[in-house]
Amino acid sequence: MNTTLIIGAGGVGRVVAHKCAMNADVFGKIILASRTKSKCDEIALEIKNVTIETASIDADNTNELIEFIKQVGADIVINVALPYQDLTIMDACIATNTPYLDTANYEHPDEAKFEYKEQWARDDKFKEAGIMGLLGSGFDPGATNVFCAYAQKHYFDEIHYIDILDCNAGDHGYPFATNFNPEINLREVSAKGRYWENGEWIETEPMEIMQVWDYPEVGPKDSYLLYHEEMESLVQNIKGLKRIRFFMTFGQSYLKHMEVLQNVGMLGIEPVEHQGQKIIPIEFLKTLLPDPASLGPRTKGKTNIGIVAEGLKDGVKKKIYIYQVKDHEECYKEVLSQGVSYTTGVPAMIGAKLMLEEIWSGTGVFNMEQLDPDPFMEEMNKQGLPWKVKELEV
Amino acid sequence: MNTTLIIGAGGVGRVVAHKCAMNADVFGKIILASRTKSKCDEIALEIKNVTIETASIDADNTNELIEFIKQVGADIVINVALPYQDLTIMDACIATNTPYLDTANYEHPDEAKFEYKEQWARDDKFKEAGIMGLLGSGFDPGATNVFCAYAQKHYFDEIHYIDILDCNAGDHGYPFATNFNPEINLREVSAKGRYWENGEWIETEPMEIMQVWDYPEVGPKDSYLLYHEEMESLVQNIKGLKRIRFFMTFGQSYLKHMEVLQNVGMLGIEPVEHQGQKIIPIEFLKTLLPDPASLGPRTKGKTNIGIVAEGLKDGVKKKIYIYQVKDHEECYKEVLSQGVSYTTGVPAMIGAKLMLEEIWSGTGVFNMEQLDPDPFMEEMNKQGLPWKVKELEV
Repeated sequence: MNTTLIIGAGGVGRVVAHKCAMNADVFGKIILASRTKSKCDEIALEIKNVTIETASIDADNTNELIEFIKQVGADIVINVALPYQDLTIMDACIATNTPYLDTANYEHPDEAKFEYKEQWARDDKFKEAGIMGLLGSGFDPGATNVFCAYAQKHYFDEIHYIDILDCNAGDHGYPFATNFNPEINLREVSAKGRYWENGEWIETEPMEIMQVWDYPEVGPKDSYLLYHEEMESLVQNIKGLKRIRFFMTFGQSYLKHMEVLQNVGMLGIEPVEHQGQKIIPIEFLKTLLPDPASLGPRTKGKTNIGIVAEGLKDGVKKKIYIYQVKDHEECYKEVLSQGVSYTTGVPAMIGAKLMLEEIWSGTGVFNMEQLDPDPFMEEMNKQGLPWKVKELEV
Repeated sequence: MNTTLIIGAGGVGRVVAHKCAMNADVFGKIILASRTKSKCDEIALEIKNVTIETASIDADNTNELIEFIKQVGADIVINVALPYQDLTIMDACIATNTPYLDTANYEHPDEAKFEYKEQWARDDKFKEAGIMGLLGSGFDPGATNVFCAYAQKHYFDEIHYIDILDCNAGDHGYPFATNFNPEINLREVSAKGRYWENGEWIETEPMEIMQVWDYPEVGPKDSYLLYHEEMESLVQNIKGLKRIRFFMTFGQSYLKHMEVLQNVGMLGIEPVEHQGQKIIPIEFLKTLLPDPASLGPRTKGKTNIGIVAEGLKDGVKKKIYIYQVKDHEECYKEVLSQGVSYTTGVPAMIGAKLMLEEIWSGTGVFNMEQLDPDPFMEEMNKQGLPWKVKELEV
């Protein structure tokens, strides 16, 4: 029987634990570990038919991780902790010859670089250890990379243009709240945009490029060009590509709130002297805003994430749209999490399932589009993330 | 020689001190007192040709006020402290038979009622003490009341409609900052509106009624109907009135900031538990925002405050607009304060000057429109607040 170690008990960790339990024949013994054991216990209590073991672990500490992985005898580590902890967990997997999977690329605690450099640099060590490391097995990155590989395999001889289109049309009914750390949100909104064209990265002003995209089952939404990490591997792995861009929807009200909060200094990360106390503005903002955990039961509406690929098949131009639509309330009913966590957590479970089943195998580190998309796409249909392909006019 | 006691050393206190010093032949010995003596000293240092005495005083403490007024032998008390302190200062003036002037009606510390009831109730005591109390001698209330009295005296047999139009088109160059306490701002913006028509007060939703008014020397601005205190006395003193309304300009950006700050709870006045500390959100906001005192030197643009009166003269309908335009930078150059403090402080000085000169006299409490407008209007032209009258089409 396999032993599966899930590290991280946030929203995504909850979804992964629930979905692994639903596929217990593959995942075997499931251990959920995080810095705060009580968060793991809470999730374990939600899962009725399968016993989830829980533990406290400091994912910043490679030695502690090594000891723990050895002790439980993990056959795979599913890393859904903080992106700051990718490297310590990868190193512990190398030291213990344990297959590894994550959902987001490593981030420096002090600076957002959004790059795979340090994870790719561990390719040799993964090969030496004879294990597979699967990078970015969430939705975007993750399912979107698989969509590209699937388009490449079945629809095109050559893909020239890719647009990744990410829409969260969820409504939690609050004037303003964030699903996750507002600081990370802010970085996305206030960072310069970047896309790749003719072999070069082209920088844009923050939110400079907007298009209205009509998302099936959602409707037309303002979609802003951002940099997003899956593009880094896709430009290397999709041959013949001329341009790739990433768009994410932001509502006018959301942008207005972010702008005002930035204007008044409420997004600041440096302590401010206030009546003899040191207060970090963004932390005080988090105290004022609704608890992200409280959003799950009240979020309505859908997510729609997909890719549009354009290129040549048998010398003829064609354009297809592969997308997945998910309803927030349906997600909450199934795993007590809204759609944003659900759409990240389910692909993590699928990637791990394919690794344990040795349907996806190899040694070294891999991005999702480097593997056969078909079994992943099949699992998506079975595991709650059914997708559609639509031919678009060129 | 007269002795003039100014209580309050905020922005308006600064203007009153400077302008009294420019009219030292009337005001004689000038004493500036406030809770924080250092603020008085700072103002005194700015004034080169006249010696301003300074003192520390607790304006919440009637007995302390009585002792101090006796000790300095004040011939008039100009109250430009907080509106919460109107009653203690009035009572001290009654006890010492000292003429009294203020610029805004009494406010309960715990609830904004914007009403003259408690000040008017002291009319008998002012009469018994043989002294004059002049209420609301700022710009609005103040100059706007005098404009109405002036229109009544010179242009109409009967005024039927009055609109008071208050525009601050100053730009301090910050995305968001407040000239004064944001809590008082919020109250104005979030309170229900109210106007008077056919003998009744009619309530509106907050910011429900907006008109674009083309302010001379400023241009067209969104102007929102609010309740404002001068209407309470004007409906009693302007006979034959059918309707009176008050409009104030708010820019879209200002309203957006107020809306977002309210949405996220940053305007809250109750302490919030944050990392083991108790933080009052609006106080933390004040800490984050630019110091109001820093706005003076950088505010550009103009204020324009006036009244439009419509009625009958010799049986013919007519409509006039009396307004005053002031440039923020010009104010700063003259008295080191921007236009909002200037336009409040100069009418306070004028009212006090007319009282000391016994051009305005009487016993009891008075609102501005109950006195002869002509000498006040004359002084405005001399003291930095020149006004214009324009005939409008009926």
